[in-house]
Amino acid sequence: MFKERYQRIKSVLQKRQTDLTVCMEHVHKPQNVSAVLRSCDAVGIHEANIVWNEHTYFRRGTAMGTQRWLKHRKHTSIEAAHQHFKQQSMQVLVTNLSDKSVDFRQLDYTRPTAIILGQEKYGASEEAIALADHEIIIPMMGMVQSLNVSVAAGLILYEAQHQRQQAGLYDKVSISDEDLNALLFEGCHP
Amino acid sequence: MFKERYQRIKSVLQKRQTDLTVCMEHVHKPQNVSAVLRSCDAVGIHEANIVWNEHTYFRRGTAMGTQRWLKHRKHTSIEAAHQHFKQQSMQVLVTNLSDKSVDFRQLDYTRPTAIILGQEKYGASEEAIALADHEIIIPMMGMVQSLNVSVAAGLILYEAQHQRQQAGLYDKVSISDEDLNALLFEGCHP
Ligand SMILES: C[S@@+](CC[C@H](N)C(=O)[O-])C[C@H]1O[C@@H](n2cnc3c(N)ncnc32)[C@H](O)[C@@H]1O
Ligand SMILES: C[S@@+](CC[C@H](N)C(=O)[O-])C[C@H]1O[C@@H](n2cnc3c(N)ncnc32)[C@H](O)[C@@H]1O
Repeated sequence: MFKERYQRIKSVLQKRQTDLTVCMEHVHKPQNVSAVLRSCDAVGIHEANIVWNEHTYFRRGTAMGTQRWLKHRKHTSIEAAHQHFKQQSMQVLVTNLSDKSVDFRQLDYTRPTAIILGQEKYGASEEAIALADHEIIIPMMGMVQSLNVSVAAGLILYEAQHQRQQAGLYDKVSISDEDLNALLFEGCHP
Repeated sequence: MFKERYQRIKSVLQKRQTDLTVCMEHVHKPQNVSAVLRSCDAVGIHEANIVWNEHTYFRRGTAMGTQRWLKHRKHTSIEAAHQHFKQQSMQVLVTNLSDKSVDFRQLDYTRPTAIILGQEKYGASEEAIALADHEIIIPMMGMVQSLNVSVAAGLILYEAQHQRQQAGLYDKVSISDEDLNALLFEGCHP
């Protein structure tokens, strides 16, 4: 029983994609944050990022236990978050409902990548858009202008998952031994 | 102004895919219903289906105005919904977190298709699973077992959108003249 759980956790952690992440910029509805985190876990994101300056996030129970397996890092500004991504040589993609944005399926997500998600009502900030390498959009063929933010996040993350799976990236271990052992230790000692 | 709006509405309605639909089986959180409907509109679904026996749905404002452009049909049982789909010669796909389910990307969504989504906590019913032609699953590579239902719906719908776009289905008009004119009339007279 213990051994099975240990093996399961280990195999999940070994698939973690340490060079793929999202950044929620002032996304504020707990159910959206929760849904985004579930999708992050599902595609093997190791650390999610949040730009926020209060402490309302990650309330117990909102993310179906993802807190335990998914690290999260808070930044007090989008500039600080951007710097964090560039230190890891990531391309920074910002979601933006603009004519200049390219179809999200056209990007190469096998590269180290951070995806910026915007606030429910106002979208991503001008700073976030100015700093990003590319603006991406999910095509909309109806009357409504935008998707729910967690749906948009899921679509982009699963495009990344698909590309990375085809490139064999889930068969390579990218998590460090240190992180792997720390998470295994925590996870197996409830 | 009026003319532009008329043209925009018309061009959206002409892209509607009358042979693609979803069916929410007892999905009960308004924010999930709302998010699913926004995605339906975005990929050009004409009529969404709901199995439900109360009247709590489609509260004003929850779906960002999709009510106006997206028809919805209520069924009192999954059997009735299933019959409705089979009368239209649709393949019926049920989402199910089971070993027997096939990867959602492997199905052919250019065929007339209905996608059954299950309740937040319990998933699709046994009846829904027994009646369906195929069980489909979105691959999960993390610790958490399932995605938020609206995220799952978005992923399947956009896979359908992608396949249908490549097959040129958005360039053919499938809505009837009658429906087109009725919706245009309603939509242009606020
Ligand atoms: C509801 S939208 C914000 C709408 C806002 N009025 C705007 O113009 O950006 C909230 C977030 O969802 C994501 N989103 C929603 N629809 C999207 C789409 N079609 N393409 C890309 N991102 C989308 C983006 O992250 C966006 O910042
Ligand atoms: C939170 S899930 C239900 C979980 C439930 N415990 C079960 O075993 O089905 C609610 C709905 O979201 C959809 N869903 C969530 N994750 C999915 C996945 N990985 N594949 C297919 N559908 C999924 C399905 O429509 C499902 O019925």
